[in-house]
Amino acid sequence: MEPTSYRRVLFLLMASLLLLLLSIRTWIRLPSLGSAKIELDCSEYGSWCTFKNRIQSRSGAFIQRTKPKQQQKADHESEVAKHPLDPLTLREIQRVQSIMQKTSIFNQGKFALHSVVLEEPLKEEVLSWKAGSNLPTRKASVIAWADGHAYKLIVDLVLGQIVENQISHENGYPAMTMEDMTSAVQVPLKSKEFVEIVEKRKVNMSDLACGPISSGWFGAGEEGLRLIKVMCFSSAGTANYFMRPIEGLVVLVDMDAKKVLKIIDDGKDIPLPKAEGTDYRLSAQKYPLIPPLNPISIEQPQGPSFKIDGHQVKWGSWEFHVKPDPRAGMIISVATVKDPETGKMRRVLYKGFTSELFVPYMDTSEGWYFKTYLDAGEYGIGLTAMSLDPLNDCPRNAYYMDGLFATADGTPYVRSNMVCIFERYAGEIAWRHTECPITDMQIREVRPKVTLVVRMAASVGNYDYIVDWEFQTDGLIRAKVGLSGILMIKGTKYENVDQISSTDELHGTLLAENIIGVSHDHYITFYLDMDIDGKDNSFVQVEMAKKTVKNGPTPRKSFWKAEKHIAQTEKDAQIKLSLYQPAEFHVINPSRKTNIGNPVGYKLVPGATAASLLDHDDPPQLRAAFTNNQIWVTPYNRSEEWAGGQYVYQSKGDDTLAVWSDRDRPIENKDIVIWYTLGFHHLPCQEDYPIMPTVSSSFDLKPTNFFDRNPIMRTTPCYEKDLPTCAASS
Amino acid sequence: MEPTSYRRVLFLLMASLLLLLLSIRTWIRLPSLGSAKIELDCSEYGSWCTFKNRIQSRSGAFIQRTKPKQQQKADHESEVAKHPLDPLTLREIQRVQSIMQKTSIFNQGKFALHSVVLEEPLKEEVLSWKAGSNLPTRKASVIAWADGHAYKLIVDLVLGQIVENQISHENGYPAMTMEDMTSAVQVPLKSKEFVEIVEKRKVNMSDLACGPISSGWFGAGEEGLRLIKVMCFSSAGTANYFMRPIEGLVVLVDMDAKKVLKIIDDGKDIPLPKAEGTDYRLSAQKYPLIPPLNPISIEQPQGPSFKIDGHQVKWGSWEFHVKPDPRAGMIISVATVKDPETGKMRRVLYKGFTSELFVPYMDTSEGWYFKTYLDAGEYGIGLTAMSLDPLNDCPRNAYYMDGLFATADGTPYVRSNMVCIFERYAGEIAWRHTECPITDMQIREVRPKVTLVVRMAASVGNYDYIVDWEFQTDGLIRAKVGLSGILMIKGTKYENVDQISSTDELHGTLLAENIIGVSHDHYITFYLDMDIDGKDNSFVQVEMAKKTVKNGPTPRKSFWKAEKHIAQTEKDAQIKLSLYQPAEFHVINPSRKTNIGNPVGYKLVPGATAASLLDHDDPPQLRAAFTNNQIWVTPYNRSEEWAGGQYVYQSKGDDTLAVWSDRDRPIENKDIVIWYTLGFHHLPCQEDYPIMPTVSSSFDLKPTNFFDRNPIMRTTPCYEKDLPTCAASS
Repeated sequence: MEPTSYRRVLFLLMASLLLLLLSIRTWIRLPSLGSAKIELDCSEYGSWCTFKNRIQSRSGAFIQRTKPKQQQKADHESEVAKHPLDPLTLREIQRVQSIMQKTSIFNQGKFALHSVVLEEPLKEEVLSWKAGSNLPTRKASVIAWADGHAYKLIVDLVLGQIVENQISHENGYPAMTMEDMTSAVQVPLKSKEFVEIVEKRKVNMSDLACGPISSGWFGAGEEGLRLIKVMCFSSAGTANYFMRPIEGLVVLVDMDAKKVLKIIDDGKDIPLPKAEGTDYRLSAQKYPLIPPLNPISIEQPQGPSFKIDGHQVKWGSWEFHVKPDPRAGMIISVATVKDPETGKMRRVLYKGFTSELFVPYMDTSEGWYFKTYLDAGEYGIGLTAMSLDPLNDCPRNAYYMDGLFATADGTPYVRSNMVCIFERYAGEIAWRHTECPITDMQIREVRPKVTLVVRMAASVGNYDYIVDWEFQTDGLIRAKVGLSGILMIKGTKYENVDQISSTDELHGTLLAENIIGVSHDHYITFYLDMDIDGKDNSFVQVEMAKKTVKNGPTPRKSFWKAEKHIAQTEKDAQIKLSLYQPAEFHVINPSRKTNIGNPVGYKLVPGATAASLLDHDDPPQLRAAFTNNQIWVTPYNRSEEWAGGQYVYQSKGDDTLAVWSDRDRPIENKDIVIWYTLGFHHLPCQEDYPIMPTVSSSFDLKPTNFFDRNPIMRTTPCYEKDLPTCAASS
Repeated sequence: MEPTSYRRVLFLLMASLLLLLLSIRTWIRLPSLGSAKIELDCSEYGSWCTFKNRIQSRSGAFIQRTKPKQQQKADHESEVAKHPLDPLTLREIQRVQSIMQKTSIFNQGKFALHSVVLEEPLKEEVLSWKAGSNLPTRKASVIAWADGHAYKLIVDLVLGQIVENQISHENGYPAMTMEDMTSAVQVPLKSKEFVEIVEKRKVNMSDLACGPISSGWFGAGEEGLRLIKVMCFSSAGTANYFMRPIEGLVVLVDMDAKKVLKIIDDGKDIPLPKAEGTDYRLSAQKYPLIPPLNPISIEQPQGPSFKIDGHQVKWGSWEFHVKPDPRAGMIISVATVKDPETGKMRRVLYKGFTSELFVPYMDTSEGWYFKTYLDAGEYGIGLTAMSLDPLNDCPRNAYYMDGLFATADGTPYVRSNMVCIFERYAGEIAWRHTECPITDMQIREVRPKVTLVVRMAASVGNYDYIVDWEFQTDGLIRAKVGLSGILMIKGTKYENVDQISSTDELHGTLLAENIIGVSHDHYITFYLDMDIDGKDNSFVQVEMAKKTVKNGPTPRKSFWKAEKHIAQTEKDAQIKLSLYQPAEFHVINPSRKTNIGNPVGYKLVPGATAASLLDHDDPPQLRAAFTNNQIWVTPYNRSEEWAGGQYVYQSKGDDTLAVWSDRDRPIENKDIVIWYTLGFHHLPCQEDYPIMPTVSSSFDLKPTNFFDRNPIMRTTPCYEKDLPTCAASS
């Protein structure tokens, strides 16, 4: 062929190839690495969020999602950061990806990004920033895994380069990526031994559903390699494969080499529980549905009262910043409240979030002993948060905020509707008083309570965690955790309690034929950087000290009096709650006083909680030593945010909150951080089968001599004229 | 005059007199004793509920009460009992009055009725009764005070006579009547010494507001007479006279002789706190009001789902009976829940109510040491409950129930809108699960939570207690107590914290100039006659027992296991809660099992609570010994309903729950009653001044292996089509 013709043919060939690829791409909607589009909206591209996924996509019963009418689908492509604490935008994540792809830090240029988040500016920078001025330099904090090491990097997005790089020599690894998990669960499929076991258990490979179970750390034999245990279920006949475990089958996998290290099968005689009755999906219900109650909704004919600009929220007397976070789930920052007397905004909480979520199971057998999850540091509470269901997860006037995260190669993806914000009226009373007839004053003053709720829900495998931050107009903040979702159950030969011998240890409760709900705990540790009217605060344990009166002036023999103990160093604030040694826990600003001289403050008010009973030297408890006390106080330190340490996966417990606190540093009149752990003991019961009604617990941060007086006294009640006129739509 | 004319004139005279009287009566709306009308609607005839009242009626800011549209004003005159547990009707109270007036039991025929309530039929009668059949014989239980003794009488309303009469030889007296209280506060006015002291304190007699403070019991010197301590305040310049105490002035009064026994004044140098800034009434607010949030309401375009017939409530899966009670406030009875599998109603709670409310103050001085209230037995939680404010105390679709009580001479009176019942949607989640991307199942199932709330609010002098019983469709019952209203404060010379010397004991917190909020506790003890699927139940303490593994099969060193301890006698169930010795508290029916053999049951789940620290031999703690433990279990006994004893006023503690429980009676597989105490320690803070934002705590009764599976799995989510279309009314 002539050279010109050759070039023409080549050109035409390439053009057609390009055209072909383009059409294929448009048809399949492949994710294109490094492109400018958002492909990975996980509510639409579920399977692609995992990149590789051999398990057939199940159409299931996907409830038609109603898009909230007042909200436009967020345009992430053109989004820019407006506040110093705003999370990385789509463009910024892409910039990180691009910078990472060009770096020569890693041998052979191969890396996996385990975390790509904003490197928050210094507190001073954030606090001195004013709306309208330039943001502090935008930087990304990146944790990369390469060459068998974790690298902690800071990427300057303005300079366009990596400005800090710390290779980790710590024990432990970063949280798994979605890619780690999905590839791990496929590794056993390559093992002939595994396939044989599955077949012997009468499970079809096409029904196999496997989950990645963090293996914890139990000694020297479990170091130096990233390990994971894969456990499998049958999804034949039900979406609720959790109820059909291939009990006793544990595959130990080398996460990086992607190979099977060991297979344990000590459940040969344990049958697969039945599928019947386990499917919770509406579409799968065979029996008549329970007739619904009359429709009921929270209505706001003039719309909600909150104003949201990007991540900044204004509502009632509150202003705060909220952002999704892959590890914490959701972070509340720079929360300030308006003083009704002065009209000024006053600082309360600089940063609050769920720092770790420890879930130890109480079964010491081979298939269970290691189930001692640290869900934030191993899986990511934000990474496992799925889109909320409008109307059912949140009421109709809720505002939705998307999460924007990065895959292992740095491609941004959207977790839409991950956080909802809504106003709540629940028929509660803010304050009231009526005079009784003795004085004959015809007085009845009542004010209704309206609050603001900020919510997300993480589904960490089987369990659903609903995390709420609720703001009240009287200055109180309530943090609440609700537990729902599906139990992790254990297969058993037992079909009835009668069959259980007295010496047999179930480690839980028989819930249905062949199903044991295994006992376990949940501990959610909150990081609370309280900055009451400023950074320098003190922590005061106000003991209700019992006093006995001997030969007193009156016949009264006993009382309690408040005795204040100001914590000077960290060991003064390692606190176990005790019903018979009660105390209040105040965070005060010793330099600010009320009108009559009390130091301003807030107090932490625990609700119901539980304490870990595990031995302190039991490896899971070593790793979760931050649950040795319910309350801790540390001096503010940017590197001390994750209660289980920076690298929690397979950690040995040498970098936990307990370790830091034992340094016994000064905490009086300093910038301090409060840590509170909300716990649950869970002995399952049949009502938890096959899906659990929500149980929840909470704690409060309550203004205590923060205001000179009740801050909501000068409010109005609800009047009939304010009520809407509503008619059924159908 | 001729005889005919004379008679005519007389007739005309009498006719005009009658006419005149009739017009006067219609104009003034006097209460007429013994008549057939309801005169004493205390929301309209406040002053007449007290009969005598020297304190001027204050118009105050009485919020225009909107009558709930769907409810007709209850016609109490024609009301008849429909259920065996229905409270006495107006006609029945009048019948009691009439019978009492005719009896010759009391010398000189003089008596005061301290309690007139239904004598409940035996449990067997109540449970075997079916709608449509005759009610068991209606009887009244009456406590009368006459000749310095308490008489416990049963009045058969069918026979029209007293059929039982027990003169009390117990220590202690019945609850005060409104007449006791109003006459007691007037007694000091007759004392010259008192008037002089008041004048020296620069309080005008017309501004004087005095309150009746139960004096407790502190030894032999306080027996044999009904005593009360009167303490006074100035209401000059404010409705919130509680903020202006005449500190240190205590008048000991003989309640029956109506005379002053002793006057103590150890507050001569303590100034009267200022009125400024203390008035909480909307009408009294001088400074700009806080702008309200956008209107928000709970809307039900098809109306609420509950059906209420008299005192019987049906909602969702629940049926129960609710009635106001002068002593307990409100009683929930025969609560049954529908089993979704069988469609049958199953028994859960035979009777539940607040049995006592112990409020000890922590100040041992002369003016305070005796403030150790037992509000149910001394004042009556129901007697001090005022009408609820529609729209502010309860949401718009609430149903209201009146209380019907008797005055000291047996005249019935109505406390309208004393209880409200409403459906609540608060944006909460009943259960949920989403699948995360690993399995690629596009599943999101969420169900919203809708509950039913039954509420009343007692204003026992200064404090407001909001008591809620909340029913959930998943079978859970939550009992909640909210505290609001006004603190009992102590006058002081101090105006600033700076002035307080380190040796000075405030017994509380300085809240404002000259005002100390005195430390105190609240303990609300609940009576819970659980009848799980029948009367005979057992109480099982399920301990989370910590176990250490030595040389176990796996590297795990510790875990907890559930160890069940069935309580055999009462001493097995005298329980103090402990965070580090956790347990669950189950009430089971050992004769009924689930499909797979677990005994059916419910568990009591404590929320946040507090424990009394007072010495057991300190007189108030002796009288309130039922707070020595958080949980007790007793065998069902009709005479054991009031935790502080039948006669609590000035009781010595010899007839309390603690005394009964020490009898150590068998409680295994018997009809048992659970007692739970919800407590609060209160160290006041400035936010509590001059009126307190509501704080609350609760506990749950949760089905535990009661159902074979999650009872609300087969429910539907909320759909957009169910939402109403609402428009602002104005």
